[in-house]
Amino acid sequence: MSMIDPGAQVEISGYRWVPPFAQGFVRDLRPRWACEEAGVSYRERLANVADKPDWLVEGQPWSQIPIIRDGEITFFESGASLLHLAQKSEILLPADPQRQATAISWLFAAFNTVEPPIFEHGNISFFAKDEEWAKLRRPSLEEFLGRRLAPLEARLSASEWLDGQFTVADIAMVTTLRSLGGSRVLAAHPAVEAYVARGEARPAFKQAMADQLAAFARHPDNTD
Amino acid sequence: MSMIDPGAQVEISGYRWVPPFAQGFVRDLRPRWACEEAGVSYRERLANVADKPDWLVEGQPWSQIPIIRDGEITFFESGASLLHLAQKSEILLPADPQRQATAISWLFAAFNTVEPPIFEHGNISFFAKDEEWAKLRRPSLEEFLGRRLAPLEARLSASEWLDGQFTVADIAMVTTLRSLGGSRVLAAHPAVEAYVARGEARPAFKQAMADQLAAFARHPDNTD
Repeated sequence: MSMIDPGAQVEISGYRWVPPFAQGFVRDLRPRWACEEAGVSYRERLANVADKPDWLVEGQPWSQIPIIRDGEITFFESGASLLHLAQKSEILLPADPQRQATAISWLFAAFNTVEPPIFEHGNISFFAKDEEWAKLRRPSLEEFLGRRLAPLEARLSASEWLDGQFTVADIAMVTTLRSLGGSRVLAAHPAVEAYVARGEARPAFKQAMADQLAAFARHPDNTD
Repeated sequence: MSMIDPGAQVEISGYRWVPPFAQGFVRDLRPRWACEEAGVSYRERLANVADKPDWLVEGQPWSQIPIIRDGEITFFESGASLLHLAQKSEILLPADPQRQATAISWLFAAFNTVEPPIFEHGNISFFAKDEEWAKLRRPSLEEFLGRRLAPLEARLSASEWLDGQFTVADIAMVTTLRSLGGSRVLAAHPAVEAYVARGEARPAFKQAMADQLAAFARHPDNTD
């Protein structure tokens, strides 16, 4: 069941439409997924990606999605959104102090240790894929990414989630890693690949994805 | 006055020595700086960078510095360390809910929006600087970094810190941006460059830096 409710206290901003290659990868997926896991209802606020509204330009330093609002309080950055939503539910953040510390450590690991080389991999694989430098960069980047993924491969061979039970850190890590879908480097790490598939198979992930895509479907070709 | 105290409850891990190019840039500088700002005493635990001890290999997925410990609770990733230490003092995290939300948003912005292209800039400027791809990549990366820095340039032209008063987000952002020191891209953003200099001029920053460097000086050439 979707947690979208026009009268909800929590607001998540997204785009009303994006080009097909970006559909399913816009970062409001993260707080949507968190809300679905935790049973927190939220309303949507959708922006035009080609002609960004003032509330997005003024409310986010880089005019990026997502901004989230909870009552009168506003956050930006998907990491800050996840951390805030996680504090609403032990489903996302365990009460035990060490498990909570470990989940927050893994949350930052996803954003600062794992995602930076994945951004670079996305750039050489899509946006800059025809550039000479991108072709020359691939071997060393794949080697570096392999070193980032190796500890995850070892851990996820023995554990379903990063630290035993599913937490907000898994939302961060799965959404980070799934950008490698179909790549050689992900295929070389089968336990990581299976972990991404486990995350994507969760009903809450599927609902969040369906709701992001539904907004795009309501605005085909970015027309009203 | 240094907050280092061998009997302190908080422990910050660092290296006992690193090669000269890395001195002053090891990421235990972040929690050290936070402790100095907040008046939180801490003890050091130093690892051999060339022959990493079991506590670092087993306690951190990528065997990276820093790990921090507070009593029985352990965190890894400098971002998680900063967030934990920030919760100990309103100097680092304001009590006002919106200012707190904004500081946490900027904290994640430093780690996930600003630092990834700075990592890449460090790679093409130092480690891979003689590679053909690195030379070819520079123009587009500098252009991209300029778009990341432009909103900071505008904001820091009008404000001393990211959101009025100094917070933990400024520790994250200054330590992120100072890796661009001496670069063309930083020189092209004078308000950002002046902000980094303001951060580095704070007594707490200088003490944290002196204490990181003092550990290296006690172990020249990584010998005991």
